[in-house]
Formats: sequence, structure tokens, C-alpha cells
Amino acid sequence: MWRYLKRLIIGKPLKSTDEGGQSLNKFKGLALLSSDALSSVAYGTEQITAVLLTLSVAALVYQIWIAALVLVLLFAITLSYQQIIYAYPSGGGAYLVASENWGRTAGLVAGGSLLVDYMLTVAVSTTSGTEAIVSAIPGLYNYRVLISCLIVVFIMLLNLRGMRESASILTVPVYLFILMIFIMIIWGGYNILTGQITYHAASAVGAPVQGMTLLLFFKAFSSGSSSLTGVEAISNSVPNFKKPKEKMASHTLAIMAIILGVFFGGITLLSYYMGIQPNAHVTVLSQIGAGVFGHGGFMFYVLQLSTAMILAVAANTGFSAFPILAYNLARDKFLPHAYLDKGDRLGYSNGIISLAIGALILIIMFKGETNLLVPLYSIGVFIPFTLSQSGMIIHWRKHREGAWVFKATINFIGALISAILVFFLLVLHFVNVWPYFIVMPLLILLFYRINEHYRKVSTQLEVSHEAEAIPESFSGATVVVLISDVTTMTTNAIAYAKSISDDIIAMHVSFDSNPKREEKVGNDFKKAFPEIRFVNIHSSYRSIVNPTLRFCDVIAKRAEHEGNTTTVLVPQFVPKHHWQQILHNQSGLRLRAALNSRQNIIVSTYNYHLE
Amino acid sequence: MWRYLKRLIIGKPLKSTDEGGQSLNKFKGLALLSSDALSSVAYGTEQITAVLLTLSVAALVYQIWIAALVLVLLFAITLSYQQIIYAYPSGGGAYLVASENWGRTAGLVAGGSLLVDYMLTVAVSTTSGTEAIVSAIPGLYNYRVLISCLIVVFIMLLNLRGMRESASILTVPVYLFILMIFIMIIWGGYNILTGQITYHAASAVGAPVQGMTLLLFFKAFSSGSSSLTGVEAISNSVPNFKKPKEKMASHTLAIMAIILGVFFGGITLLSYYMGIQPNAHVTVLSQIGAGVFGHGGFMFYVLQLSTAMILAVAANTGFSAFPILAYNLARDKFLPHAYLDKGDRLGYSNGIISLAIGALILIIMFKGETNLLVPLYSIGVFIPFTLSQSGMIIHWRKHREGAWVFKATINFIGALISAILVFFLLVLHFVNVWPYFIVMPLLILLFYRINEHYRKVSTQLEVSHEAEAIPESFSGATVVVLISDVTTMTTNAIAYAKSISDDIIAMHVSFDSNPKREEKVGNDFKKAFPEIRFVNIHSSYRSIVNPTLRFCDVIAKRAEHEGNTTTVLVPQFVPKHHWQQILHNQSGLRLRAALNSRQNIIVSTYNYHLE
Repeated sequence: MWRYLKRLIIGKPLKSTDEGGQSLNKFKGLALLSSDALSSVAYGTEQITAVLLTLSVAALVYQIWIAALVLVLLFAITLSYQQIIYAYPSGGGAYLVASENWGRTAGLVAGGSLLVDYMLTVAVSTTSGTEAIVSAIPGLYNYRVLISCLIVVFIMLLNLRGMRESASILTVPVYLFILMIFIMIIWGGYNILTGQITYHAASAVGAPVQGMTLLLFFKAFSSGSSSLTGVEAISNSVPNFKKPKEKMASHTLAIMAIILGVFFGGITLLSYYMGIQPNAHVTVLSQIGAGVFGHGGFMFYVLQLSTAMILAVAANTGFSAFPILAYNLARDKFLPHAYLDKGDRLGYSNGIISLAIGALILIIMFKGETNLLVPLYSIGVFIPFTLSQSGMIIHWRKHREGAWVFKATINFIGALISAILVFFLLVLHFVNVWPYFIVMPLLILLFYRINEHYRKVSTQLEVSHEAEAIPESFSGATVVVLISDVTTMTTNAIAYAKSISDDIIAMHVSFDSNPKREEKVGNDFKKAFPEIRFVNIHSSYRSIVNPTLRFCDVIAKRAEHEGNTTTVLVPQFVPKHHWQQILHNQSGLRLRAALNSRQNIIVSTYNYHLE
Repeated sequence: MWRYLKRLIIGKPLKSTDEGGQSLNKFKGLALLSSDALSSVAYGTEQITAVLLTLSVAALVYQIWIAALVLVLLFAITLSYQQIIYAYPSGGGAYLVASENWGRTAGLVAGGSLLVDYMLTVAVSTTSGTEAIVSAIPGLYNYRVLISCLIVVFIMLLNLRGMRESASILTVPVYLFILMIFIMIIWGGYNILTGQITYHAASAVGAPVQGMTLLLFFKAFSSGSSSLTGVEAISNSVPNFKKPKEKMASHTLAIMAIILGVFFGGITLLSYYMGIQPNAHVTVLSQIGAGVFGHGGFMFYVLQLSTAMILAVAANTGFSAFPILAYNLARDKFLPHAYLDKGDRLGYSNGIISLAIGALILIIMFKGETNLLVPLYSIGVFIPFTLSQSGMIIHWRKHREGAWVFKATINFIGALISAILVFFLLVLHFVNVWPYFIVMPLLILLFYRINEHYRKVSTQLEVSHEAEAIPESFSGATVVVLISDVTTMTTNAIAYAKSISDDIIAMHVSFDSNPKREEKVGNDFKKAFPEIRFVNIHSSYRSIVNPTLRFCDVIAKRAEHEGNTTTVLVPQFVPKHHWQQILHNQSGLRLRAALNSRQNIIVSTYNYHLE
């Protein structure tokens, strides 16, 4: 039944050869890779105004200046990433760029940051998608966390079905969102010009605002920089583009940056002009939408729907990127090998599932509050930004081709801005970002521990390593059969033991509780198998495991001395239905777990199937 | 480390022979077995007043009449249980009495009810113990669920250490509580007589109360009957008493009933006289205590502490009774055999742990609200009461000894009252008790399914059952060694395989992903073991399990034909540290699970220990 369900949800397995290279044109590439960046306009302006509002309504005027600065930032970062596209056409990614240019630890910091950050991408996108839904349907307010979790699970299942199928679905919400925001900005601008929307800003641009400090300005600015998260996605996926890959990717990035800039600027202007204030129940974007289209109108609902949908798609970006990064880390032996395996549908299922679990934990831990997640998200983005862009300076210096000084300068500006943002986030949002500085060192430590382990294992496994040692060869086998009772299971197990060995010992552990029964087992066995040695071990502590282990150790030592191998045969029941498992085999399980700790004992399971 | 921790918390294992019969005198028996009943005065009066208050403050006068009725009930039930003590000196218990007299299903209903009820005992006692603590220290109000859970875990650990050690600890809180309540009642009475406590009741006894209905009266009465829960405990534990067991137990029951009656009556009178109204933050008992001793005084805190402590001890009653009942059900093959095993300290650890988990789930599900748990608890108590007492009528009729008609009459009254209470609870508290009628049929079904399974298995296992069949005997063994790479692990595994068989096949599953590596594995193997057959299975679906299973099936069939057994040797890594487990063996695990489904294949594990 479980299998049938899995087949139904995930789809039937695909052959390895079914995998074809994806080739994205600009249209599809934009849809697939820009949702993360574009969707951040859904919460970017809100992040700025929320900080400014802690001072006063009048301070909201500064959102204009901050937005302008963010746009400059966007321009610089876009140029910087276009460089990366050309330099690393095989798909840069901060992990690769930082590893290659800064060294292993820097690469791992970038990789670790991104791993956590993709979880945050998923968490932030789904929670703010949920906020868009809740803004439209306030009755759902108390179910936010549940809705977010369901969205994550849904996207996870979509990804377990496979990337390609999702890709075509994804174009619709992305382009719908682009269309809706364009209409909103144009219609809003038209209404402002015709006076349908009246000026509500609390203070005019240029007028002094009491209490405004540079600190608050930068705090708001660093919050607003969350709008830039996701711009790196295209540079990581260059190989997926159609030829000429670099040019395609670079153009797509430019188009995306222009759209993002227009959206962010337009939304901030509308927000300022309409005097919108963020609140917990209705998002800023939804307030603008209500102001422009009228609350409760058809267009308003389409806007909310498209916002929720693009945010869901943005969460999907994390699902594309995380498994590949985990794959790269696993390939370099910094994460478990399990991340190398492809699932039935050719996706890296383990990565997909890990990501979903991480995102669910974050959503539940932060109770679905986007505002609490965003600063953490931003620092996790800008640290790899800084590392990869500064790494590019080293890259250009190494190769010294063409106008390398110019290129390095561009990357320098990108790196500098990112570094400044990291500094601001660290200083001004420490309350929110401190977990990063606990999680990251632990993660790096974990990477190194895993790496060390794998390297040690591979050294130990090399055949040449033990070449001098004489290859072991044994004269025979000693088999210990564990007996709890004389039943058909016992007779079958003994018959099997006879097929692999002439030296068989039947072992039974007895307790004080029922001496009569114990005697009966011994007698029954001796009657049924007079030719086989029967050993009754008495346990004073009602533990089967310890006496068995002690006895098997003695036998194994003796066997070794005689040049024999030692096999311990543990009979177990295989019930017809899974739930019946709990009715049997508890001691068998424990015995096998304990015996597995012995290098010189081979643990064999005799499966007796219940009818 | 885990072992060391376990040793520290649970204590060192005891020998089976360390178990000595407990022998309780009245003093110790009262402490150990009455805490459940006595502690229910901590919430009994509150249950009555809470229902009456839904009408009006004036209606609180009826608590006097209801309390009187509860006392009559207590008298009848005590007499009835004294009968059971003499009739079932080996420890009656509703499960046994109902099974023997009413038949199996009735016994299972009683047993199932009690299993769930012991979980509720633990849950109700700890949550109201927590309420006593919170009444004294209001700052803890928001941590109620957490505190309750910690108490449950603490009592569980105490019980895992063993019964005897707990017994001596338990006398202190029980007698402290008895002392404190006596002082409170006497001091309260004295203060009333001397006029220090003034009359605050909203209406006088006898005065008509507007809106009072018989329905509400019985609703309050059935709520108040929760004070009688726990009186059965002594009759279940007759064998633990000193000789003459029956007399000892019967007297202890009488003493307990008298104390309970005085407490319940006294507390209700004080509650009425002082005009106390229940509220969510402060318990009724705590309000009385504050009125008598003064809020915040030393005596007040001692009262709260002793209340919390006896409630914790009452929770402990569940821990004594549940594992024994689970043992009895498991012995009769209605529950998994695991409940028959004694732990290191001679307690039935599985029962103890199951009970704690059940109670924790209930506490968390009901958010630690005693009021929501009590009706469910009551119905779970009074159904077994009814079954066992009516069962006693049948018992007397069967034996017809001495004044059997008189004895049967007493039990009839007890059964009747219990049945009426069940009816009231069902009709008047349906909102709270409906889960009982869903859980119970499922539980009974489960009991029967388990029973059926065990009976079928034992039939199948009987050696005589297959006596006609020729005992299997094999001419030799075929061994399939699963190979993923040619390493020292492989060479060791092959060496072992050679020791048990001459017919060895090495099997390797290859994927498309890396054809070069696949070729290398084949060549390396053929070079290292030219004498052994090497089979390379190609998997198009990146699944190791399915091709392996298919291949092994073919081999097993061939082997069977040749009179051979089939062994599949799965090599696995045994890492030094447990956490490293996640870095290895994922496919090994899945392979073994799949191969266990084959009757004719023996699954062997070669453990390769990593250094």
C-alpha cells in the first residue's frame, strides 16, 4: 500500500538514461531562476518601513532614499555576477568560487551558509506567501503555521516527482506575478496622476524628521537589502541554459535585474505616496494592492494569489539549489554519501527531503513570522556573496587576462557592498542574527569531521594497505545457533547450520523464573538433535544479551584458534503484517545489535515466515 | 556513556533472586495504596462546585447534598470491595473478576478501561499536582504542561529503579498530606466556631435556588464521584500484605475509606461555609487553605507542597498497577510479549515506559487541564467497577457459601451505584467522555487481533505439526557475496564465505553513471579472486535492492534444486562512533530488509570494523 501511494504521489521510477540535459531559453530561465529574487519585493519594502516605523510615521519618508541605495546595490551586484557567469560557465556558486580562490574553509563557510540559507529561502518564501493569503482571507490568520507547512510539503512532493515537470508549471505564476505588479505600478501611477489616489505621506521628501539617526537609516537599509536575495541563482545555473550559455545567462540576469529594480522602486514609491504602514495582519504589498485596485475587487485577489504563487515558486528555487550543493559537498566528502544518490525520479531525494525538514523546523520554531526570519536569511546570503565576489578578485589576479583590472574592480565593489551589509546586519540586527554564529562553526566542524572520517575509511580499505598481511584463509566454520524453544523454527535453523558447518553449538539462555520450562527445552532439544552440542547458559539478570555475548566470545576465540570462522545464527520471525513485528523479535534485534560489535563474529539471520 | 547514564539513573541491575515478596503492614499499605483515593479530595470538591457554578453562585449550596450522596456511595463501594478482598485473596482486579465471571470480552473491557485509566490517573494526578504548585506560585502558571511532564518523567525513572525503593519514600508525602488536611479541617472548624472565619455562603441550606434542576444536580454529582477513584487499589494488591492478608487488606481499606470520607466531607463543608468559588488559577483546596491558614503563611505552603506531593505519589499508583495489568494481559496473549520481561531492576520496564508515554500524550493533548481529563477518568473507573462488582454477584451465586445472598446484595448495591454513575457520566458529560467509546472498541479489537496472531504462531511452531514432513537436510551451501568495491572488506568477506561454502558467487550492481569505475571493479575483482564467479548486474533505475533481490531469487531457486541452502552475505561497516553510522550502510540496511522477506534465503552480515 505504501508503495502504491508512493508511486501515486511521486510517479513511476525513471531510468537513469531518461535524464536529458535541460536547456533553458531566456523566457523559461527567467521563470525558473528569478522567482526567488523577484518575489522578494513582496517583503522587501515592508522590511524597510517596519524598521523606520519604530521611530515615527514621519520617518517613513526615508524609504525613498533607502530604496535608491538598494537599487545602486542591485546594479553593482548584477554586474559582479555577470562576471562570475563568464568566469565559471560550468555553474559558479559561492561554494566553488570561494573554495577555489580562498581555500577550503572559506568554501565551506560559503557552502554551509548557503545550505542553511536555502532552508531559510524556503521558510521565508512560504511564510510570506502565507501572509499574502492571510492578507486576502483574514479568517485564516490563526492557521498560518499550518498553511506554511502544507505548502512546504507540497513543494517537496513536486520536487520528488522531478524537476522537469515542475519547470513548466512554474512559468505561469512567475509571469502572472510580473504582469500583475506591472499593472499595479502603472495603474497606481496613472491614478496618482489623475488624482484618484491622494497623497498620504506623513512628511515630504527633504523635510527634517525628528529623531532620525544614521544608525536607524542603516538598520532599515540592511533590512531592505533582503530584496536582493536570490540574484545569485542564475549564475549558479549557467550549464542549464541554451547555447551560447554564458550570453543567455548574462542577459537573463540583466533582464531580471531590470524587472526587480522597477518593481522595487515602483512599490516603494507607491508605498510612500499612499502613506502605507506595515502591520502584522496585512502586508504592505497587499495594502498597496487594495489602494490601487480597491479592496476585495477581482484584481486585488488576483494580485494576492499571484504573490502567494510566486513565493511558493521562490521556495522551489531552494529545492533546485540545495540538493545540488549538498551533492557537491558530499562528492567532496563533507556530507554523507547519501546525498549522492538519485531517487526514483532522478532528483536527489535525500537533499530534497532534508531541505523540507529544515524549512519546516524553521517555520515552526519562528512560528511562521517572516520578520524574524529575514535578517537571518540576509546574513546567510551576504556572507557567501562577499566570499564569492572577493574570490573573483583573486581569480582575475591569477589569470590576468584582458581587462582584468576593470573586472576585478567591479567584483571589488560588489564584494565591498556585500561586506558592508554583513557588517550592518551583524551590528544592527545582532538580536536576530546571532544563531548564525553558533550554527556555522558547528556546521564547519561537522563538515571536517565527516571528511576526516571518510578519508580514514578509504585509507583503511585500500587492499594494498594490508598487502603484506597474509590473506586470511580458514579451515572451517563454527556455528552457534541461538535457541529459545524447540519448534519448527529451531529444526529449520539447525538444518541450515548443518549445510554450512560440521561444528554446531546450540545455545539457550535460561532464567530462574520457570525452571521446569527450562528443563523441558533442554530435554526436547537433546531428543530431537542428539548429535548436536546443547549449551544452557544461566542468566541471573534476566538479560539475554550479555550472557550470549560472553559465550559467543569464548566460542569465537576457540574457533579462531582452530582456524575456523564463527557464525552466530539468530532465528527470527517474519510476520505477515508489519504491525505484528512488535509482537516478536525484540530480543533478536538486541542480540544482533550487540553481536555486530564483534569483528570476528558473523551474524546470520534465519527468517522464519509466519503464515 | 549511555550505559553509564542509565546505570546512574536506574541503578545497577538486580539478580532475579533478589526479588523478595513485599509484605505490607497497614501503615505502609495505606501509604502505598491509598494515595490515589485520598489525593482525589484535592480535585473532588472542585469538580462539584465547577458544575454548580455554571448555574449560579447560589447553587453552590447543593455541594452539601451532593457530598452526602458521594459519602453514601463511598460506604457502599467500600463494603463491596471488602467482599472482593475475601473472595479473591490472590489480588482481584477488575480484569480477573470480570473475565472469570462475565467472560472474556467483559474482562477485556475492564482490562482495557483500566489500562487507559491508569494513564489518566497519572495524567490527572500530575496536572492537579501542578495546579497545587501553581496556586502557591502563580508565576509558574504558563509552565504547567512542562511541569506536569517533568513530574511524569521523574516518577517513571523512580519506578524504573524499582518498586521497593519507592515504597519507603512514599510514606512521607502521604502521611504529611493526611496530617495537613486533618489540621486544616480541625483548625478551620475551630476558627468557624470562634468566629475567626465568617460565613460567606451565597445561600442557606434549604433555601430554594432559582434554576436548579435535577439534571444539573446529577451532573455535579457524577463529577464529584471522581473523588472515589482509586478505592479499588487495595483490593488488587492483597498478596502484598502481611498475613493474615485478607484481614490486613480489608482493615486498611476501611481505614482509608474513613479518612477519605472525613476529608471529603470536611473540605466540602469548609468550601460551602467560606463561599469558595473555583477558578482556573487557584484550586478550591488552596483557597480553603489560604482562608484557614492565611495566604502566604508557612502552613499554607506546607499544605500546597503536601498536596502536590501526594498527587505525585498518586500518579505512582498508576505505575504500580499498569505494568502488572499489562503483564496479566500479555500472559493471556492479549498484549505483546514484551510486557512480560522484567528490566534490570526487576520492574516491568516496558509497562512503566508505555504508561509514562501514554500519560505524557494525554497531558499534552489536553494541555494539562485537569477539568477536561476528570470525566474521562471517571468513566474509565466506573465501568470496571460495575463489571467487577456485578461479576461478584455471579461469583457468589456460583459458590453459594454462607450468607451468599447478603454478600451478593452488597455487591449488587455497589454495582448498581456504579452503573448509575456510568449512565450519568455518559449522558451528562458526553462532550468529554465520547473518546472512551472510540478508543475502547479499538483496544478490544487490538487485544483479539494480538491473541489470534499468537495462537496461530504457536500452532505453526509445534514440531509435531510438521512431523509428517521429512526433516529438511541439505547437501551444501551457496553463498552470494555482495560487492560494491574491491577493498580489504571484500577480501575478508570472501575469506569468510570460503569457510562456509565451496559455491560462492560475487555480485555487483552497476549503474550508468560511471562506466569506467564499474569496469574497474570487475577487473580488480577478477584479478584478486580469479577462482570466484563475478556477476555484474546492471540497474537502469539506480536501485540496488530490486536487481539484487531478483538475482538472489534466481540463485536461491537453483540452489534449492541442487539441495543447497542460500546465504547472502552483506558486508557492512561498523564505525567507531555511533554518529558515523549515518555516513555508511544505507544500502546495506535496505538490502537486508528486502532479503528478509525471502523464506529460503539466509541473510548474513559481515561486520567490518572501522578503526
